[in-house]
Amino acid sequence: MSGKTIHEMKIGDSASMAKTVTEYDIYQFAGVTGDFNPVHINEAYASKTFFKSRIAHGMLSAGFISAVIGMKLPGTGCIYLSQTVNFRAPVRIGDTITTTAEVVELFVDKNCVRLKTTCTNQEGTVVVDGKALILAPKK
Amino acid sequence: MSGKTIHEMKIGDSASMAKTVTEYDIYQFAGVTGDFNPVHINEAYASKTFFKSRIAHGMLSAGFISAVIGMKLPGTGCIYLSQTVNFRAPVRIGDTITTTAEVVELFVDKNCVRLKTTCTNQEGTVVVDGKALILAPKK
Amino acid sequence: MSGKTIHEMKIGDSASMAKTVTEYDIYQFAGVTGDFNPVHINEAYASKTFFKSRIAHGMLSAGFISAVIGMKLPGTGCIYLSQTVNFRAPVRIGDTITTTAEVVELFVDKNCVRLKTTCTNQEGTVVVDGKALILAPKK
Amino acid sequence: MSGKTIHEMKIGDSASMAKTVTEYDIYQFAGVTGDFNPVHINEAYASKTFFKSRIAHGMLSAGFISAVIGMKLPGTGCIYLSQTVNFRAPVRIGDTITTTAEVVELFVDKNCVRLKTTCTNQEGTVVVDGKALILAPKK
Repeated sequence: MSGKTIHEMKIGDSASMAKTVTEYDIYQFAGVTGDFNPVHINEAYASKTFFKSRIAHGMLSAGFISAVIGMKLPGTGCIYLSQTVNFRAPVRIGDTITTTAEVVELFVDKNCVRLKTTCTNQEGTVVVDGKALILAPKK
Repeated sequence: MSGKTIHEMKIGDSASMAKTVTEYDIYQFAGVTGDFNPVHINEAYASKTFFKSRIAHGMLSAGFISAVIGMKLPGTGCIYLSQTVNFRAPVRIGDTITTTAEVVELFVDKNCVRLKTTCTNQEGTVVVDGKALILAPKK
Repeated sequence: MSGKTIHEMKIGDSASMAKTVTEYDIYQFAGVTGDFNPVHINEAYASKTFFKSRIAHGMLSAGFISAVIGMKLPGTGCIYLSQTVNFRAPVRIGDTITTTAEVVELFVDKNCVRLKTTCTNQEGTVVVDGKALILAPKK
Repeated sequence: MSGKTIHEMKIGDSASMAKTVTEYDIYQFAGVTGDFNPVHINEAYASKTFFKSRIAHGMLSAGFISAVIGMKLPGTGCIYLSQTVNFRAPVRIGDTITTTAEVVELFVDKNCVRLKTTCTNQEGTVVVDGKALILAPKK
């Protein structure tokens, strides 16, 4: 039950997962974090904004990044050191978000890996991108 | 129902919220994001790791940052552009996390504000820190 | 607060409940079990499969069987020994599933009852069937 | 994004996942299925039964079986045909349940695989076992 060690990863390796984001996901995320910004949970308000409808929390997509890293690349046993996230486009109810992590740098002496992390919607639009720095699992 | 405009904020302004993190929060976060990394949802496994017990997802704390920004500073009407997060210490079940956002830079011509964002536990240990870049609301 | 004893049931007795399955049910079920198979939570993927849309987890219907048995027939105090489930047709968002348990065998000396368990959708199509073996409650 | 085909599996292949079952899981499962049998959600009642405390729904463990099959072995693209489940011992709040699926029969001409499915607790006690029949994914 152990993820990939620094020696089992190489530049260009990638992993991904995808989920259709629903009203349920947004409301659960609001309920756990307390982020009740009306653009997320108030349709009457959101419909009058630039976004035209309720949108998902950007950090929900960041949570998907965490899932790919913690479950797949490197997976179990890794330690999350840091993440940058750029929110590039809104995620709406019904959008299917594919989240991908790709190895872009290996710091073998520090047992660290840098991953490019990207969330795209069903039309291929990048909604979130950024980079993660991860301490790789040891065997 | 509008947050603070760029002209209503000054360097040093801050806002915060606090929540005691429970098993419920962690399990909901796992259930929404799909992050079932065993360090979060498997006590038998987690007890044998460096962490000694299940820990919260780092992105749950990032969600608290989103809440402070979207609810309080600047609040309603702001647009989240980007965030950096450094995961400095684990959050365990029962920890009370206080999340603070503080204005550190104002880019008036671009209607942007940079916030220092910090999550600390009940003992004052910084568990997450980083910076946010936000497009301020307009009146 | 006690269910039916072996002496209070006879062949042919039945009980049922019905629920309209929603996206919420499927997402909660995924979130609790960790079953994020894309056919359940990825509409973009599911729409290209044999099923043409996201479908509920078969074990959600099995959960409805557990509900009828544990709540109604025999009800409180019974002990679930075993269950067989055949997944015969998909359950989609919006389908109303009626779950019925019917007594088909009584083993009085062992205080056991066998139930035929059937889940049908609003069109009468059997989506799940199988049999349950239950230890009946004692007075 | 495809699971293992019939030609990519052999007798003895196995996969597993583990989760610490919490009060949250039991309450969510009750809330979705409607199985409010007091042995699951009434501590005052459950403490006076043979079980001495609230126990998880057996079908929650069956949901873990679904997760291993749908996510790992064979994984994406498989179709669940049937499952038998024997409930052998109770699962209590705090138990860590490891769920394993192991290939025991291959019916290559029918593209089917039979898996032995077993849930054990942290002490190695089998809480649920049975067999699954699965239509393997095609490439």
